[in-house]
Amino acid sequence: MNAEIIAIGSELLTPDRVDTNSLYLTQKLNEAGFEVRLKTVVGDNREDIQGLLRAALQRSRLIVLCGGLGPTEDDLTRVATAQALGRRLTLNGEVLEGLQRRFAVRGYTMAKINERQAEVIEGAEVLANPAGTAPGMWIEANGAALVLLPGPPRELKAMFEAAVFPRAARMAGGRSMATRTIGIQGWTESEVDTRIAPIYTSFSEVQTTILAVKGVILLRMQQWVGPGEIPSQLDDLAGRIQAALSDTIYSTSGEALESVVGSMLRKSGRSLALAESCTGGMIGAAITRVPGSSEYFRGGIVCYSNEVKISQCRVPPALLERHGAVSAEVAEALALGVRQALGSSIGLAVTGIAGPGGGTDPKPVGLVYVGVADECRCVISRRILPGDRETVRELAATIALGRLRGFLMSENARA
Amino acid sequence: MNAEIIAIGSELLTPDRVDTNSLYLTQKLNEAGFEVRLKTVVGDNREDIQGLLRAALQRSRLIVLCGGLGPTEDDLTRVATAQALGRRLTLNGEVLEGLQRRFAVRGYTMAKINERQAEVIEGAEVLANPAGTAPGMWIEANGAALVLLPGPPRELKAMFEAAVFPRAARMAGGRSMATRTIGIQGWTESEVDTRIAPIYTSFSEVQTTILAVKGVILLRMQQWVGPGEIPSQLDDLAGRIQAALSDTIYSTSGEALESVVGSMLRKSGRSLALAESCTGGMIGAAITRVPGSSEYFRGGIVCYSNEVKISQCRVPPALLERHGAVSAEVAEALALGVRQALGSSIGLAVTGIAGPGGGTDPKPVGLVYVGVADECRCVISRRILPGDRETVRELAATIALGRLRGFLMSENARA
Repeated sequence: MNAEIIAIGSELLTPDRVDTNSLYLTQKLNEAGFEVRLKTVVGDNREDIQGLLRAALQRSRLIVLCGGLGPTEDDLTRVATAQALGRRLTLNGEVLEGLQRRFAVRGYTMAKINERQAEVIEGAEVLANPAGTAPGMWIEANGAALVLLPGPPRELKAMFEAAVFPRAARMAGGRSMATRTIGIQGWTESEVDTRIAPIYTSFSEVQTTILAVKGVILLRMQQWVGPGEIPSQLDDLAGRIQAALSDTIYSTSGEALESVVGSMLRKSGRSLALAESCTGGMIGAAITRVPGSSEYFRGGIVCYSNEVKISQCRVPPALLERHGAVSAEVAEALALGVRQALGSSIGLAVTGIAGPGGGTDPKPVGLVYVGVADECRCVISRRILPGDRETVRELAATIALGRLRGFLMSENARA
Repeated sequence: MNAEIIAIGSELLTPDRVDTNSLYLTQKLNEAGFEVRLKTVVGDNREDIQGLLRAALQRSRLIVLCGGLGPTEDDLTRVATAQALGRRLTLNGEVLEGLQRRFAVRGYTMAKINERQAEVIEGAEVLANPAGTAPGMWIEANGAALVLLPGPPRELKAMFEAAVFPRAARMAGGRSMATRTIGIQGWTESEVDTRIAPIYTSFSEVQTTILAVKGVILLRMQQWVGPGEIPSQLDDLAGRIQAALSDTIYSTSGEALESVVGSMLRKSGRSLALAESCTGGMIGAAITRVPGSSEYFRGGIVCYSNEVKISQCRVPPALLERHGAVSAEVAEALALGVRQALGSSIGLAVTGIAGPGGGTDPKPVGLVYVGVADECRCVISRRILPGDRETVRELAATIALGRLRGFLMSENARA
């Protein structure tokens, strides 16, 4: 069951815009039982769209077109599809009335130009658009199905869920893709691959992808299953990988690292304070991304200058002079100091050299110290991180969360 | 001069991965004089790649393929391209020696499998890969050119700059795309469009795109120009839009808002301190993204709890009790307090309700107060922001930077 996605719009062919609708669509099409074999982005050009559609009808069972359903001259999806199929495009009275009502409710008279949105391709089923004006269409032709969806993500998602998913799933006859996602922190992509390649390569039915995202590794495994079938290879593989990677796995449910750490803090009834130097607030931004984080997150100090390290995080000035701001000693003092200053049970601190300037031979760009402290312990770690300024900062923030997780785990182990 | 981009790799057809190489390539191809008319993502499937190539050769002058040049069974770009062109693929002795040397330098013996990377299509020019093992190829056929580039962005960019750009520019004969980017803060996308649509629609040679990104609006204008030609429509349009939008424009050079604000602080010799509640560190993260920000950025307090607002930002407890943490009074007290606590010339504070919980009728989710204070002034503003938790936080952080910019501008006006 092959599907393909065609995104239509000249703005998607500029250097600023990526088509992200296709990510959502791919996930949903996989769930509905379709494999996405091609994705294309095409401009508002009638001939180009027609050419693509003719080729698509030769090779795919399901063709999803997004965008180009607006009311302007540039919106060519309806007319290009009708021509590629050799079918008529006619004004649909019912759709027109719906559009006019929609405008009237808001106190407007519909402009003549919007009538175009009520044009329907011969033989198409109209798909209602509760979130906007442009209706969608489901068209069957030559054993394939074509779906026309509006471009705005909110409208596209609402229409897909309500009208397209059930039709697609029916076409695929109960086949679907089962997936598992494992989140790993503390190892590089190649370290992970070295350990698990001998395992996953022996599972022929499971497709495994390794993805490095801002300091964590996401391992995605997927297997096609028939109606009612259990993805036994997938379950078996996931279990064996969990055993092989053990503690470096922070999540088997797709949960984010900051959310996992948040749950650990909440369960242990402990509170957190941050002292951030080179990350400048990125760890705080991640921690507070989680709704309800105020339960365990006390706050943070962005101690970008030495003055703030001294006055707010209680770092002794002599320590800064002797060891420098980027040192194990200062990381420790920051973690202990911010914990006391903000009255939290745990203090987490990061200090490092993000670059591009400021590096020296003994202290190169990328050098980062992380400190975690509670009332009786303080753990310091040191890393030299690769990449440009923003990469070093992102990695440092993620590594700090990973260290906090390790600290909380070892605490549980001791309890 | 039509170009198209084909990204090859089954991992790009999963719900987790977008092809971002094509954004870089689009910008460079535009600069070199080519319009990108199609972008396609295809899996590691020989027939699919061949089918695409045959269609591409019918319609495009320049076809850029990225990825699939590795040494494994899944890397099919070389063989599929050779077959689509009906040309032979042969082991190239010189490339092979280069590969072997590369391995030897690192102390490895090259595995047999890597020999595949030394296979070259008949009639192709080999493009050196200084950043990796897979060489690229430039192939001319039927009046079109095909370029094979490695998938890893670092390798792709290095090869494009060195070997592809000059060849492409020569093909296009000096034609190129001139672009201007204007950054706007403080208005919504539709407010901007209402004001400038009457202007830009009368410039037929300029393509104008409006893009909303995390609270700022980017206006991108582009015009094709011949060899030596000046983009006079583009310059004229940019000038008229600048006059129409005046103070809401923070940049005409593509510079980020945090960088513009940083330059203003540096020039005026003033320092900044932050008090962040709902944004949790996002403003600090943005400010410190700019290299050299330590010159003017003192630091910040992430005052997520009332205790931290009181102890670190010197907010009187009675104020919190009387008006609540999300109020104009507390925004003012935070801005004044953090300025004093951190000893900076300017204090910037944000307090708000990011949701999803915590909203009430008088104080709904999305309510945000921003305060900016120096030694003699304090300006407070109030907004109700749309969207989910992360959107509200992103918008709040950008609006705070915009307010800081307004504060610094009005200061200059008074001086």
